[in-house]
Amino acid sequence: MIAHLIETAGSVFDRLVVVVGPDMQALEKAVAPWPCVVQSERLGTGHAARMAEDLFGEGDVAILYADNPLITAGTMRALLAARRQEGTSLTLLAMRPADPGRYGRVIERNGCVQEIVEWKDATEAQRAVTLCNAGVLCADAADLRRWLGALRNENAQGEYYLTDVVAQAAAEADVHHVEAPAEELAGINSRAELAVAEASLQKRLRLAAMEAGVTLVAPETVFFSVDTVLAPDVVVEPNVVFGPGVTVHSGARIRAFSHLEGCVVGGEALIGPYARLRPGTICGKGTHVGNFVELKATQLGDGAKANHLSYLGDSSIGARTNVGAGTITCNYDGFFKHRTTIGENVFVGSDAILVAPVTIGDNALIAAGSVITEDVEPGALALGRSRQTNKQERGRMISESLRAKKEQG
Amino acid sequence: MIAHLIETAGSVFDRLVVVVGPDMQALEKAVAPWPCVVQSERLGTGHAARMAEDLFGEGDVAILYADNPLITAGTMRALLAARRQEGTSLTLLAMRPADPGRYGRVIERNGCVQEIVEWKDATEAQRAVTLCNAGVLCADAADLRRWLGALRNENAQGEYYLTDVVAQAAAEADVHHVEAPAEELAGINSRAELAVAEASLQKRLRLAAMEAGVTLVAPETVFFSVDTVLAPDVVVEPNVVFGPGVTVHSGARIRAFSHLEGCVVGGEALIGPYARLRPGTICGKGTHVGNFVELKATQLGDGAKANHLSYLGDSSIGARTNVGAGTITCNYDGFFKHRTTIGENVFVGSDAILVAPVTIGDNALIAAGSVITEDVEPGALALGRSRQTNKQERGRMISESLRAKKEQG
Amino acid sequence: MIAHLIETAGSVFDRLVVVVGPDMQALEKAVAPWPCVVQSERLGTGHAARMAEDLFGEGDVAILYADNPLITAGTMRALLAARRQEGTSLTLLAMRPADPGRYGRVIERNGCVQEIVEWKDATEAQRAVTLCNAGVLCADAADLRRWLGALRNENAQGEYYLTDVVAQAAAEADVHHVEAPAEELAGINSRAELAVAEASLQKRLRLAAMEAGVTLVAPETVFFSVDTVLAPDVVVEPNVVFGPGVTVHSGARIRAFSHLEGCVVGGEALIGPYARLRPGTICGKGTHVGNFVELKATQLGDGAKANHLSYLGDSSIGARTNVGAGTITCNYDGFFKHRTTIGENVFVGSDAILVAPVTIGDNALIAAGSVITEDVEPGALALGRSRQTNKQERGRMISESLRAKKEQG
Repeated sequence: MIAHLIETAGSVFDRLVVVVGPDMQALEKAVAPWPCVVQSERLGTGHAARMAEDLFGEGDVAILYADNPLITAGTMRALLAARRQEGTSLTLLAMRPADPGRYGRVIERNGCVQEIVEWKDATEAQRAVTLCNAGVLCADAADLRRWLGALRNENAQGEYYLTDVVAQAAAEADVHHVEAPAEELAGINSRAELAVAEASLQKRLRLAAMEAGVTLVAPETVFFSVDTVLAPDVVVEPNVVFGPGVTVHSGARIRAFSHLEGCVVGGEALIGPYARLRPGTICGKGTHVGNFVELKATQLGDGAKANHLSYLGDSSIGARTNVGAGTITCNYDGFFKHRTTIGENVFVGSDAILVAPVTIGDNALIAAGSVITEDVEPGALALGRSRQTNKQERGRMISESLRAKKEQG
Repeated sequence: MIAHLIETAGSVFDRLVVVVGPDMQALEKAVAPWPCVVQSERLGTGHAARMAEDLFGEGDVAILYADNPLITAGTMRALLAARRQEGTSLTLLAMRPADPGRYGRVIERNGCVQEIVEWKDATEAQRAVTLCNAGVLCADAADLRRWLGALRNENAQGEYYLTDVVAQAAAEADVHHVEAPAEELAGINSRAELAVAEASLQKRLRLAAMEAGVTLVAPETVFFSVDTVLAPDVVVEPNVVFGPGVTVHSGARIRAFSHLEGCVVGGEALIGPYARLRPGTICGKGTHVGNFVELKATQLGDGAKANHLSYLGDSSIGARTNVGAGTITCNYDGFFKHRTTIGENVFVGSDAILVAPVTIGDNALIAAGSVITEDVEPGALALGRSRQTNKQERGRMISESLRAKKEQG
Repeated sequence: MIAHLIETAGSVFDRLVVVVGPDMQALEKAVAPWPCVVQSERLGTGHAARMAEDLFGEGDVAILYADNPLITAGTMRALLAARRQEGTSLTLLAMRPADPGRYGRVIERNGCVQEIVEWKDATEAQRAVTLCNAGVLCADAADLRRWLGALRNENAQGEYYLTDVVAQAAAEADVHHVEAPAEELAGINSRAELAVAEASLQKRLRLAAMEAGVTLVAPETVFFSVDTVLAPDVVVEPNVVFGPGVTVHSGARIRAFSHLEGCVVGGEALIGPYARLRPGTICGKGTHVGNFVELKATQLGDGAKANHLSYLGDSSIGARTNVGAGTITCNYDGFFKHRTTIGENVFVGSDAILVAPVTIGDNALIAAGSVITEDVEPGALALGRSRQTNKQERGRMISESLRAKKEQG
């Protein structure tokens, strides 16, 4: 989910810094190119913010949390805009959840935030306040550095709380809150909540796709990644899953039950139903990839077709080539992967077995059912199959004898 | 979506006439057998209605819009019934949308509609009216022809407005409105609205199927076409897509992840999971079509089975024949399609390749892995495969040498 | 749905007895090991309860109905707990449905249930009562036997009504009601209601899985059986169907569009997308089963892989063996099923055809495209395929001649 938060924040802020725990350094790669700072001891949210203070630079800084991944760009912009109003030292996000429960309360006086009171420290009157702290805040970098430096950890947990900067800010100038929908600020504390957050993200991605001119026949059955790029006039049928790194060009149709990851689909291509495109696959313009076909790290030239029950891996296939039903590239020998190269205008007969490494020239023809272990010259016909023999009445005899055996039990 | 509107209207009215724009003549085929009239200049809704007036015939005529595809038969019938009440010259559909916005308002006096006022021409008092015009109306053919003939285009857009007939009708006799739910009258102005309308249509189709005695295990995951015909006691598992032109007979079960278009499924047949039936396919009684099997323009005789990983195209397969896993018909040579004909009680061994045109007689037996290029007589055994040779220790040697190579990097 | 009710009741009560109609004896197997009693004449609910009275044993007995399958364990426990309060002879479930319609009404006085009045016998005042009888009740075994024995069938239908025991119980001691949500008590009278009940059950099963530590990426697209067992840290991607009898061990990932029935998936295994595991399949630790692969009654040893387009039936496959794309076991000769046994560390080349019964030794290597009809010794290389021949320019000639023919029409 952090990928989504970084994507959103990156569309609002110039720079991001990510603070990670000591055991989370694998995240560094995921958040690149943004810098990562490690908080090696978990001494509270204020301490975490201090870890990044050298990278605050100048101007406004907002502090967000990985467990609030659903905050929208609109909310982030509202927080920033509110901060820039004259006489405002700090702005914070607030919400009014259906059940305020044990959230910290936002205490205001004369329209300005006075302080954040943690639930356990709150009086009955303060607990009756329904405006709750969402944790997210925004202030000038220099102010924030100064306030963070003044935080103390003299509390039960011995931690530095980021919320304590609010009282400092309020002592210097006005603190205002921006209220956001509680759903947007939902923290994720269980797998069920994660699923709800994921559903909320999917809903947004579907709406964004439709607004961008993509036709989703049954939006609720299409699953996107945050980086899915679909051009206008792409049509997506029901039950399609987009893993990371997919780009689909205009006029392409992704039919039902297809699964795409790390691939590019050219304009006017027809993919599916039941097509699986794996990473490294590039389908050219007007290509057709049909049912029960798997492409892995394979380039299909413009107008090429692979319509039925095939596995094409580590291959490059020329324009207008037709790959017959049941064709399989043997790209793996148990230790190494090898490439299959097929030219343009080739006709690969059904159930051909292409034992890589192997190269098939332009305009070649591979007879159905052939095992191809050697290169095929352009324009050649390659055969590698046995001749048929028919044995009169033998089929019937075998069946009768099996039937008799079965009847005897 | 127009298919749905025509289907609904056709269940209420005796005849339909479709008026299309100058660039929409492709629709003609889609709306057949109903006649299509082309409005070659777009001079307003009143002008469009006039295009069809020669085909009004006699009796009541209703005017509907392609962008209100969700009107139900019940609403159409209510509109017609209201028109037939004594002293009524015209009836129109009205709605009360959550946000009346810029819809035309229905202005009534003493329980009768006086006129439709367009939003831009409405007074503040008229804008406060929440009853909005849905555009749809119904009147006697002769009256309607007369009123349409009297329409004038002296307005800002220079167009003939159909709504102007309402004031004429009100001058002659009572005009009444029939109120319909706003959802039913929702126009479709964006891909997101189209998806919502499609979802609403799917919901109705699912309910109608269940009311007709079809069991849908997870209705919200089944997608119908408006012309899908499922007999009582058909069972449909989760995640099934019905394209246009599917009929399924009683007792058949369509298992999960199946995709059917333009096909007939016989009684007690078992289809899927992951079966794809393409146009022209007819599966007989008690047939089994299993996972990762594609049938295209193929007839499967009663009790025939194709249970695993097969492509059968342009084929006819006799009763009780068993098609083994991985069987493929080579029906296409890159230029022409050819037929495969298989008799009754044939046993097609696994991974057989049937190079069409080819005919296999009743009771024949095709050995697994055979490439069949010539006809097979009834009762015969056909083989077209190589004999096996084992080379002692060679497997281990090859593996060891590859492993060594890999370890050296 | 009865499976779900039995599962729930079995988690609350020590013993269950199922009463079935005369034509429902097939249920006996489904409800085992619980005993089944046949009510051979349908003489009413009171009569049905009497059929089981010899098996009541001692202590509290609750009577539930197969058409209320959604009652929760919590509700059952509340009913039992209420019965155990001092001075209580009987407890019954009541509900307040949105539309009380023709349900029997629960008539109370001084906080105690007086009687159940059937709608048709109720006065206007009684019909105004919104508390309705849900049919379910709980009492001491001895009391219940006594009251059932005193039931009479002097009513219009000539039936023994279980509800009549309420008045008897009320005459002896207090009868209390436990109110349950109406949804939970929804009877199922149509296919649409069955679908709603099934959806409600699925929702519960998904939540329970997530609470147990399973990650469901898109819960609403995953379909469970009541007996599905998923260990913590299993991940399930969108669009997965679990038929009866599936167990998945920790760390396994079930990818999109997979379909599992009657199988065990080992820890850290990677299944799918588009994998179909059929009954009798056991996938070991760290196994990989990829797209368009069907396993039926097949054991895959630890670390074995079958990643693409294969059918493996009635097979046992050793640890670390790699099954190439398009491999098919010919396990059926039209009459008998035969086994395929493959050792450890075997490399089965793509599109191999294994004609069962056949045994392949450890460390053997099967060349791609081979038809294997005889056993292969450990470490051997087995080949059964034709050598390739290339015919210069023949491919081009064939294509040109077909093209010419096509152009001539």
